[in-house]
Amino acid sequence: MPLTIDQLNAATADEAVALLDGVYEHSPWIAARALVSRPFRSLAHLKHALVQAVAHASREEQLGLIRAHPELAGKAMVSKSLTAESTNEQNKAGLTDCTPEEFAKIQQLNADYNAKFGFPFILAVRGPRGTGLSKREIIDTFERRLHHHPDFELGEALRNIHRIAEIRLNDKFEATPELGNVVWDWQEKLAVHTDPGYAEKGQLTVTYLTDAHRACAAQIADDMREAGFDNVQIDAVGNVVGRYEGATPGARTLLTGSHYDTVRNGGKYDGRLGIFVPMACVRELKRQNRRLPFAFEVVGFAEEEGQRYKATFLGSGALIGHFDRNWLDQKDADGISMREARANAGLKEEEIAAIQRDPARYLGFVEVHIEQGPVLNELDLPLGIVTSINGGVRYVGEVIGMASHAGTTPMNRRRDAAAAVAELILFAEQRAAKDGDSVATVGMLEVPAGSINVVPGRCKFSLDIRAPNDPQRDAVVRDVLAALKEITDRRGVRYTIEEAMRAAAAPSAPEWQQRWEKAVDALGVPLFRMPSGAGHDAMKLHEVMPQAMLFVRGINSGISHNPLESSTNDDMQLAVQAFRLLLDNLAAEAAH
Amino acid sequence: MPLTIDQLNAATADEAVALLDGVYEHSPWIAARALVSRPFRSLAHLKHALVQAVAHASREEQLGLIRAHPELAGKAMVSKSLTAESTNEQNKAGLTDCTPEEFAKIQQLNADYNAKFGFPFILAVRGPRGTGLSKREIIDTFERRLHHHPDFELGEALRNIHRIAEIRLNDKFEATPELGNVVWDWQEKLAVHTDPGYAEKGQLTVTYLTDAHRACAAQIADDMREAGFDNVQIDAVGNVVGRYEGATPGARTLLTGSHYDTVRNGGKYDGRLGIFVPMACVRELKRQNRRLPFAFEVVGFAEEEGQRYKATFLGSGALIGHFDRNWLDQKDADGISMREARANAGLKEEEIAAIQRDPARYLGFVEVHIEQGPVLNELDLPLGIVTSINGGVRYVGEVIGMASHAGTTPMNRRRDAAAAVAELILFAEQRAAKDGDSVATVGMLEVPAGSINVVPGRCKFSLDIRAPNDPQRDAVVRDVLAALKEITDRRGVRYTIEEAMRAAAAPSAPEWQQRWEKAVDALGVPLFRMPSGAGHDAMKLHEVMPQAMLFVRGINSGISHNPLESSTNDDMQLAVQAFRLLLDNLAAEAAH
Repeated sequence: MPLTIDQLNAATADEAVALLDGVYEHSPWIAARALVSRPFRSLAHLKHALVQAVAHASREEQLGLIRAHPELAGKAMVSKSLTAESTNEQNKAGLTDCTPEEFAKIQQLNADYNAKFGFPFILAVRGPRGTGLSKREIIDTFERRLHHHPDFELGEALRNIHRIAEIRLNDKFEATPELGNVVWDWQEKLAVHTDPGYAEKGQLTVTYLTDAHRACAAQIADDMREAGFDNVQIDAVGNVVGRYEGATPGARTLLTGSHYDTVRNGGKYDGRLGIFVPMACVRELKRQNRRLPFAFEVVGFAEEEGQRYKATFLGSGALIGHFDRNWLDQKDADGISMREARANAGLKEEEIAAIQRDPARYLGFVEVHIEQGPVLNELDLPLGIVTSINGGVRYVGEVIGMASHAGTTPMNRRRDAAAAVAELILFAEQRAAKDGDSVATVGMLEVPAGSINVVPGRCKFSLDIRAPNDPQRDAVVRDVLAALKEITDRRGVRYTIEEAMRAAAAPSAPEWQQRWEKAVDALGVPLFRMPSGAGHDAMKLHEVMPQAMLFVRGINSGISHNPLESSTNDDMQLAVQAFRLLLDNLAAEAAH
Repeated sequence: MPLTIDQLNAATADEAVALLDGVYEHSPWIAARALVSRPFRSLAHLKHALVQAVAHASREEQLGLIRAHPELAGKAMVSKSLTAESTNEQNKAGLTDCTPEEFAKIQQLNADYNAKFGFPFILAVRGPRGTGLSKREIIDTFERRLHHHPDFELGEALRNIHRIAEIRLNDKFEATPELGNVVWDWQEKLAVHTDPGYAEKGQLTVTYLTDAHRACAAQIADDMREAGFDNVQIDAVGNVVGRYEGATPGARTLLTGSHYDTVRNGGKYDGRLGIFVPMACVRELKRQNRRLPFAFEVVGFAEEEGQRYKATFLGSGALIGHFDRNWLDQKDADGISMREARANAGLKEEEIAAIQRDPARYLGFVEVHIEQGPVLNELDLPLGIVTSINGGVRYVGEVIGMASHAGTTPMNRRRDAAAAVAELILFAEQRAAKDGDSVATVGMLEVPAGSINVVPGRCKFSLDIRAPNDPQRDAVVRDVLAALKEITDRRGVRYTIEEAMRAAAAPSAPEWQQRWEKAVDALGVPLFRMPSGAGHDAMKLHEVMPQAMLFVRGINSGISHNPLESSTNDDMQLAVQAFRLLLDNLAAEAAH
């Protein structure tokens, strides 16, 4: 008999602790503290309460929790003194079946890890889909995490413990994240297609109109048809457009979607999650044979990353009538023009204009996207409400001082270009931090042809400044550029700076942001509002209709544009549930 | 009738101002203020007093002095309203004979320069040897100086005015720096020899045992013989050794010299000045048929820069028995081993050991060297007394943080490797400045494969720390490394650091430093004591005998290891005079 939330809410405190026994290894205090938050509104709510109990515990208690765990493939496994749950998990990962070399390697990693951090290495070996990680993946992750900073690794250990607990709770409640698994499997299936030269390296790269890109479009179209969309088309720029018609013909349409192209050696979730989550909703609507009072249109945008051609947001841009015909003459690294690539894909130039949507026919645009940042992961929150897509400005610059002998030039007679840039870096860092939600980054930094014994005469740098609205961004820019002038004047050096990019902020439409908030709140997970630091297709639709986005936590510190980008089936499940609630609520609104 | 110092000292104030008329363009106040320092001990003393009068003037007065000068090839030249002195100078430089293109170019430069700095471009067109700069050299210098910082360029303008005044004073006093000119001409003759591939580019490069290097040795040996040395040999490592015997056989020997090899595309004076200045002294002794109570040995060291082979200080090292036989197997960029290069030059390995000197046979080692730094130039001082050759330590390091998305990673969740290094740069700068005479430099700096939109995950840097004595150097190192640890701990990033070089300081022997001081003081120029930031051959001799060095001002901000490295015939004259006084005083000491 699976446990239920009602049963847990009704139990005495002691009974409830007993019901949750084994979720957190040898640490019943966590359940005891979490239970003060009863009644739980959902399993997600319970999970969050447990996470919060650990977050509010002392550092000693947290270390105690970590140290209550067995070493991976360690002595406890060998002597068969693991808890039942741990035995099951280490079995599934094949750790009980190591070769002597693998075993020796893991023992060495255990010893190194313990020596560095003072606690055992903990990894949710059942992995983000709930199925086991391979021994190879486990050893790679182990080696990678050995390099972490101790503070960070403490958090990483706790996050893995929470993931282990989540999987154990799913077992206890027999709460398989079935829609999350559907989304997961779609992503895996799509990730099979990758551009030539990357497959061999096990890397995912899907750029505009390559064979892999066209295979992705076909795959998404097939999956859409199978999910029950009424009409699925690949349009004249390569967007895959699925429509699920409303209860009445001529009803207005809710638009959603995201992109299916990737950066080079990218992740599986960036963009694609925003296609598959609404597809899972349509799949459920179709299974229930249910129609909404509005039509629902899911678009897999063909091009957002601008990798093969410098044509960022080509896919979503086409929907608002932005297609720059100069792009057609651009050539890729192999000398193939976009015009040639389009002809090869059978896309007709004369049909591009027809892609433009009439905003009057649309309710608005919503987009689900993996966060691509560390915030939700560090706060142990599965979902985030986007308040605005940040506006940004980018610069490339150089400070020019005077190269001189490192031994013979006294400190007070230097015109050190790198020291001036160092001041700029620290000023920009502090200035952005003061706002709380602005960011400033010097990502490129180089003393060209620098020598160990020469005071830098030149220092090149880049500057990227973003904020949730344009006036806030511009205030940071103004202060940072003023600081650059002040620093270089004071140091007797000069500088050049050139604007490389400028993008306006796209604040969420309040009514649509509130719809996401209502849906997320109903799941029993806390609301967390945040700006989007990265650009998204929603920025383009923003120009013609109201928009709002939902973020899904990225694990592995939210790393993005990287094969380590990842999510979990449970978080995807919550995203589908939130989207379904948004659709339901919107249907209810229409009914009133 | 030339003016004399005695005449100037005896004149009334008004007469004296009149006697100095025309030295500083339309600015008799400078002479008037300098005259309060009478009686002048020498022409050098007068020159210094004039420089000091300008240095102590207000900024407005300094600007007035600069603005009292005509534009180069400007309206005043065209309308023939220049002072007699200016007309003479602009004539000699060929400026009155410009092509229309050259004239237009100079007019444009004049306009740009005036717009940027608010005063006319001033250049001592009669140049460092007193002879004219070419029109090409004038235009190149003009273009280069346009890029200067205004504060720096103000100083550069004044320094050129002082140089113009110096040449005008030499004319007035008929004080040709004859020995300086001899040294100058030797340097020019030697600079004809350069390694293959550099001559075409007009660059000076003389590396160990190339044809150009051997031609230099032969040239120095010839010039030594012609100057009157008793015995001149090229030894088994390629050092050119000239001896001028003392009055009595068996007398102990004063050793001096410096190196004749250069860095790639280097300057003409680095090292070589320290060979030619004492050669000029021997030339004078021989002319006077005079013998000192000690022998005098001048060595042109074959190798100090370690360019062709990594064998820094090979030449001076051989004199103290340091010759590493592993060097013989080193290959140059063309695959030629040092053994092969030596065989080709006819140098015999079995004779190397005999180069080692018996310190008991030597009084000590003195070395004259161009400063290779900006200090004397900025202070308007021709000579500097070296107190110590700084000890140094070099490191290469890397900070490892976490690369993350520049848009999506809030400021308080970053592990920015470059920001950590920025803090280190500024700490090192301030820490070294606190000592006054320590230096710390981050000369290499790079975010490897940095992107404009990625928070730096790695940042590589170098660190070079030097101080006049080892405990002071080690204290700076200790503080900087502690700061690195504190910064990286606080920021949650980690670092690696590796020592790349460590050299002990070589403080001057007090009695020899005092001998230089006595000599310089007798010239009527102020004493200025300073450490040597760069390494010199004297560091090697320091290991076996007392040593002390004399620095000669480098013009062009003291730039070194660069074709712009330069000096003047007047400063070289003072260096020869100082060396002659040191010899005379040492002879007098021996007589007591």
